[in-house]
Amino acid sequence: MMKLKVYADRMSQPSRAVLIFCKVNGIDFEEIKIELSKRQHLSPEFHAINPFKKVPAIVDGRFKLFESHAILIYLACAFPGVADHWYPSDISRRARIQSVLDWHHLNLRPGAASYVLNTVLAPLLGRQLNQQAAAEAEKVLISSLSTIENIWLKGNGRYLLGGLRPSIADLSLVCEIMQLELLDEKDRDRILGPHKKVQQWIESTKNATRPHFDEVHNVLYKLKTKLSVQQSKRADSVMEPRIKTPLTSKL
Amino acid sequence: MMKLKVYADRMSQPSRAVLIFCKVNGIDFEEIKIELSKRQHLSPEFHAINPFKKVPAIVDGRFKLFESHAILIYLACAFPGVADHWYPSDISRRARIQSVLDWHHLNLRPGAASYVLNTVLAPLLGRQLNQQAAAEAEKVLISSLSTIENIWLKGNGRYLLGGLRPSIADLSLVCEIMQLELLDEKDRDRILGPHKKVQQWIESTKNATRPHFDEVHNVLYKLKTKLSVQQSKRADSVMEPRIKTPLTSKL
Repeated sequence: MMKLKVYADRMSQPSRAVLIFCKVNGIDFEEIKIELSKRQHLSPEFHAINPFKKVPAIVDGRFKLFESHAILIYLACAFPGVADHWYPSDISRRARIQSVLDWHHLNLRPGAASYVLNTVLAPLLGRQLNQQAAAEAEKVLISSLSTIENIWLKGNGRYLLGGLRPSIADLSLVCEIMQLELLDEKDRDRILGPHKKVQQWIESTKNATRPHFDEVHNVLYKLKTKLSVQQSKRADSVMEPRIKTPLTSKL
Repeated sequence: MMKLKVYADRMSQPSRAVLIFCKVNGIDFEEIKIELSKRQHLSPEFHAINPFKKVPAIVDGRFKLFESHAILIYLACAFPGVADHWYPSDISRRARIQSVLDWHHLNLRPGAASYVLNTVLAPLLGRQLNQQAAAEAEKVLISSLSTIENIWLKGNGRYLLGGLRPSIADLSLVCEIMQLELLDEKDRDRILGPHKKVQQWIESTKNATRPHFDEVHNVLYKLKTKLSVQQSKRADSVMEPRIKTPLTSKL
């Protein structure tokens, strides 16, 4: 039988969720890198895999599928080795996971993705930063994090919906939030700082999926380091005239 | 056993999808009207059902659920009388339906809802029409309809993904598109006119769910009639000065 193929860019948060899921569950797969920054998602070859030209996408035998939530659900059902907690067979628990995933698409995803794009990533993609868009996205992002803190993490469970073990919703949402690592530390602290349960839950999800979680996020950690070097250089060059000006004026 | 409760406003397209689904499948349920225009979704009673204060929501025994896609999937799995074509037990077909539903949330829904809000509905909700938002939404809406026409309805099936019978995705998407009935006829023709397969598919879905489809949409048809009376009155009052001006200038 043909090996499962996963078309992914590790810079894409839903790609990371699918890759980590496969690795944690011992699914035998081949990772096919589609680098968005090199516009590889626009090639005719990839268009034949996903007409929407987005990652992640999978090919399992003759079956093609895209949309990360649909992929996670498919993998959880199609591969018998996957533990039940990822996508429980219990209909009610499954339905509630579904409602978190639907909520994610309409709230956390647009908030987080647009905020990071418009405060950090745009220049790397040859686009302009947009302060207005960033301000609007920040509201959606902060409100989404409050919802996770106060509604989805209500109760004593370590995971969403009071779960004792992670589901595909935990993995999907935590991978979304991980892109905040790319922010300036000040911004990240302002946004994530007040949400203590969210922070614990991120740690729990990391721990439950080690070492694959960090391995798949490595590309993000590297970019974070590169960005913070740039940020501190920019901060230095901004500081200089500030120091010079008062000195001059005092003389 | 307690009867299933469905909290819905028939003016909400996902509410209509859930109500039609229950009726078509002979599910014994009680419809509890939550009128958005009377702000009934903001009551403490409804907040206890759905902390997000949105319709539709269901209560089945002690189990509460919201997000219409999650509800449709739950009902299809929890009620044994539901025919398999609505949410097939085959894992691959199920996954593809899931990917259509995910796509719906991120494309057709924001396009259609924002366009109708900003060209027709806003004044009824005490809000201003926003031409800029309408223009942006129109692009998303038209591109979404093209996607349905050329990708989801590709092939010879009557329904999405080549289906011979409707799934929950057909019902959910057609109910979304039905709100275009409220548009000025000129706008509706411009937007829906070029999409012949979409039009046939709407008819097929209506036929497959008669008489419940029209019964549940009746509130929308009534509002449509009311709005077209208003529109023709406005057109008359706009016409008058136009007729007068050339007459005057000719004299």
